Amino acid sequence: MEGFNDLIHQQVRLRIMAALNALPPGAEVDFTTLRSIIEVTDGNLGAHLRKLEDAGYIKVRKTFVGRRPRTYIALTPNGRAAFEEHIAALKTIISGEE
Amino acid sequence: MEGFNDLIHQQVRLRIMAALNALPPGAEVDFTTLRSIIEVTDGNLGAHLRKLEDAGYIKVRKTFVGRRPRTYIALTPNGRAAFEEHIAALKTIISGEE
Repeated sequence: MEGFNDLIHQQVRLRIMAALNALPPGAEVDFTTLRSIIEVTDGNLGAHLRKLEDAGYIKVRKTFVGRRPRTYIALTPNGRAAFEEHIAALKTIISGEE
Repeated sequence: MEGFNDLIHQQVRLRIMAALNALPPGAEVDFTTLRSIIEVTDGNLGAHLRKLEDAGYIKVRKTFVGRRPRTYIALTPNGRAAFEEHIAALKTIISGEE
């Protein structure tokens, strides 16, 4: 089905993409905040973020705040487009119009 | 996440459930018609129907029309409720309100 995206469809990744898509274009969220929204373990969130990063849908930036490592995540323009296409495909399915 | 249903979320099963949900309560669709809507192979459709039947979400009725075997599929009340809950969960995710 056109626009339907199996990578994005997976529950945790769909929720990650939706959370990032709710931010203004280019805005970042830190790993800890994202984890508290998605409510998964560090390892689980990390694994799904890697898949989304490998697909070019998100950008992951690692930095330090003082001595503490911090990870920031943002949607890429490609990620935003893929998410929007997937949501459009989902809406078509849900509406029973396909 | 409440109402989110991993069994129903799978792409082909989501499309089957949406197609059945578009029918009036209790109405059946025949296997061939459903296959032409979902656009998958006989084997693939059969495997997904079995999972939905095992979960109690659909009812499968086999009969003969003349000498030809026919299979009819309908959503059960439990299936309709589970689908509606899943769609509500999806809409919450998509709207970024979770």
